[in-house]
Amino acid sequence: MTYCIGMNLDAGLVFLSDARTNAGVDDLRSAGKMRTFGADGERLLVTLSAGNLSLTQNVLNLLDQRARHEPDRPGLHNARSMVDVAQLVGDCMREVRARDEAYLRARDIDPTGSFIVGGQIAGEAPRLFLVYSEGNFIESTPETPYFQTGETRFGKPIIDRVIVPGTSLHEASKCALVSMDSTMRANLSVGPPLDLLVYRRDSLGATIQRRLEETDPYLMTLQRQWNDALRIALNALQPAPWLDDCDG
Amino acid sequence: MTYCIGMNLDAGLVFLSDARTNAGVDDLRSAGKMRTFGADGERLLVTLSAGNLSLTQNVLNLLDQRARHEPDRPGLHNARSMVDVAQLVGDCMREVRARDEAYLRARDIDPTGSFIVGGQIAGEAPRLFLVYSEGNFIESTPETPYFQTGETRFGKPIIDRVIVPGTSLHEASKCALVSMDSTMRANLSVGPPLDLLVYRRDSLGATIQRRLEETDPYLMTLQRQWNDALRIALNALQPAPWLDDCDG
Repeated sequence: MTYCIGMNLDAGLVFLSDARTNAGVDDLRSAGKMRTFGADGERLLVTLSAGNLSLTQNVLNLLDQRARHEPDRPGLHNARSMVDVAQLVGDCMREVRARDEAYLRARDIDPTGSFIVGGQIAGEAPRLFLVYSEGNFIESTPETPYFQTGETRFGKPIIDRVIVPGTSLHEASKCALVSMDSTMRANLSVGPPLDLLVYRRDSLGATIQRRLEETDPYLMTLQRQWNDALRIALNALQPAPWLDDCDG
Repeated sequence: MTYCIGMNLDAGLVFLSDARTNAGVDDLRSAGKMRTFGADGERLLVTLSAGNLSLTQNVLNLLDQRARHEPDRPGLHNARSMVDVAQLVGDCMREVRARDEAYLRARDIDPTGSFIVGGQIAGEAPRLFLVYSEGNFIESTPETPYFQTGETRFGKPIIDRVIVPGTSLHEASKCALVSMDSTMRANLSVGPPLDLLVYRRDSLGATIQRRLEETDPYLMTLQRQWNDALRIALNALQPAPWLDDCDG
């Protein structure tokens, strides 16, 4: 499993992914789910992948090779809009699935995967997309300015309650880390190291890009503080009059 | 879908369930998932059910009819331990499944269901069990003094971080309501009215039993306060030094 979050805010974009991959609990490995493609001052593209690792890696390999060796062909390096980028990812998804799917299905292996694709290309605003396993895609909206993929449920409530387009990049980053922490506590197949990328609107380069290991002091502080904060917040909730004497 | 929570604390037991049932989004109905069986001063038994409604209702019908009409047979009314109660629920589950399962499977209808079963019988401590669809069951432990059934993931992190055996009944009730609220926000097929039962240890009768409608003033206050509290708690988390200037 995996857990990835992408947020599209007025101030820019926030991306967070775990780096655990597994083919069963006896085959856990570490593999980053975040990839960036960029040309400083011109474009920054970020992908977060979930699902079948051979599918998602080969989609990225295909995109990478084509940008490198076939510069005249439409690719990540010359797409003029983030919509074209999402389309390219979707097309490559279909290409790799067409090649591998029958072989995987024959062995009951799930051949599906998905991408969160975001970034900015000079000339348009930062944008964020979710590319499905079938190659089609949707874009984030002000009503729901975020996407999650993988093990999404444990970490959804905190994002759902906090994130609006006006949330600052700093606040959104903390929210994403808390959401990830809730997910890691509940699902062993989601785990550190974590990859965080913060992108300030119109900067056309990564503002902050950081890998947080399991023993990262800030991550450990955040986990402890959030645990305490929730207990305090719950305690501070107005008591129901009819619950008042239930403890005798 | 459904969401049910049972907690086994030093001070007693807390049960919370929603009352939405659906056979597709165009067939939503309300059906309480909580049932109590009791004899004041002698025993209080509570069941919370999830899954196929015809299965879980008929398990309870069977138990109810037998307690009523076959008083000499082992039943909810004369079980001497909560273990026997969990066993009775499991046996009836097998009985109803044996009768219906082939017919349901033939139409691709999921024939499974599960119960949280808790309570106290004079002479032993309050106990809490999870009875699986196959009729086997497990008991709560001090390490994980709660069970959830149905749509469990959205509401797990808050319980996971807060509930320990020493949590008060009042605090645990608020926690259960917040966990339910997170779930209702995320999954339309979980919804009010909610049934809450608080059981104080050794009281051998329901301490608080309350149905909360969607417009219940306390529920609405709790939802608003929790939303605010989370935003404040997130804001109060120690900022990462390396995130300090990401908003420019």
